Amino acid sequence: MQNPTNNNYPVNNLVKQRWSPRAFSTNPVEKEKLQSILETARWAPSAFNEQPWRFILGEKGDSAYDSILSTLVDWNILWAGNAPVLILNLAKKTFTHNSKPNVTFKYDLGQAVGLMLTEAVDKGLYTHQMSGFDANKAAELFNIPDDFQAVSVTAIGYYGNVDELPKDMAEMETKPRERMEFKDMVFGEKFGESYE
Amino acid sequence: MQNPTNNNYPVNNLVKQRWSPRAFSTNPVEKEKLQSILETARWAPSAFNEQPWRFILGEKGDSAYDSILSTLVDWNILWAGNAPVLILNLAKKTFTHNSKPNVTFKYDLGQAVGLMLTEAVDKGLYTHQMSGFDANKAAELFNIPDDFQAVSVTAIGYYGNVDELPKDMAEMETKPRERMEFKDMVFGEKFGESYE
Repeated sequence: MQNPTNNNYPVNNLVKQRWSPRAFSTNPVEKEKLQSILETARWAPSAFNEQPWRFILGEKGDSAYDSILSTLVDWNILWAGNAPVLILNLAKKTFTHNSKPNVTFKYDLGQAVGLMLTEAVDKGLYTHQMSGFDANKAAELFNIPDDFQAVSVTAIGYYGNVDELPKDMAEMETKPRERMEFKDMVFGEKFGESYE
Repeated sequence: MQNPTNNNYPVNNLVKQRWSPRAFSTNPVEKEKLQSILETARWAPSAFNEQPWRFILGEKGDSAYDSILSTLVDWNILWAGNAPVLILNLAKKTFTHNSKPNVTFKYDLGQAVGLMLTEAVDKGLYTHQMSGFDANKAAELFNIPDDFQAVSVTAIGYYGNVDELPKDMAEMETKPRERMEFKDMVFGEKFGESYE
């Protein structure tokens, strides 16, 4: 099931095994697993401990799920509609202690979601995030206040059957994962100069 | 050493043990541990697999370290100057495939850094991120191109001696960590309506 990676250096298993598939099983996810996944976000670090992240949880069959699904672009609906769980990831744009703009609100949300991914792996679950959705429609459907912004949607579930995907998606699913080389990502004295 | 937490639900050890101290030991960090920490970022997910993250790695004694340290606000210099490693976290503001703005560049960077935190915990290391630094000064010192933005600095190292911190920081260090309650973070049908 695991899509092969080309690691330059060893990493822990929760990161090593993480991967964003599109072939989700329709089997539901146990509530206690979802609670633990969301709890990891609670303990993420954030600027001034603002904890700007909020989550709207939809499980297949409830209205939150249908609403989140309806905000996705067509390409994402094709596969994400199988996933039993869709989470709308939001963040607060201003600091609560002084009402000033929080320039790291998306960064802090990303970090919280990053930690959630490790808990999903720990529970045998897969995640796939999407930025291809209509944030304005989400704001309307869920009465999201002006000082919060919907940033992404995470699909969560068990792995499914790749043969049930449309052909182009099935091909993407089985290609090795690609990343830039370490030397192009980590710099030393100046930007662009490899650290290694 | 671990600052106590008040978990609502259980989470994996790499998240459970993560914590942002200020009492860093000046002992250096082994190069292979730094490589593994940075490698986890390589495997983070990102919109269109853009991988917008870049990192400038400074180790105490080299010029990159001195430059990163010089960008920090005074309060951060007081404690971060003990940490043996400072990483400047950057991200690309535009997509490479079409030059359009990437609205999730900070989100994707945050996620990559979130995964790095788990690898640090796995290696017995502590991390503390800062948004209190001068991004413009960093851009000058490191020749950072206009389409990249410095977003945060991560201090990495082993735990040190809390008694060597200024008194106010030492008090912060030993207070229990605080987070909003799960019910205020996870919503169901509408924003603000608890999922639980």
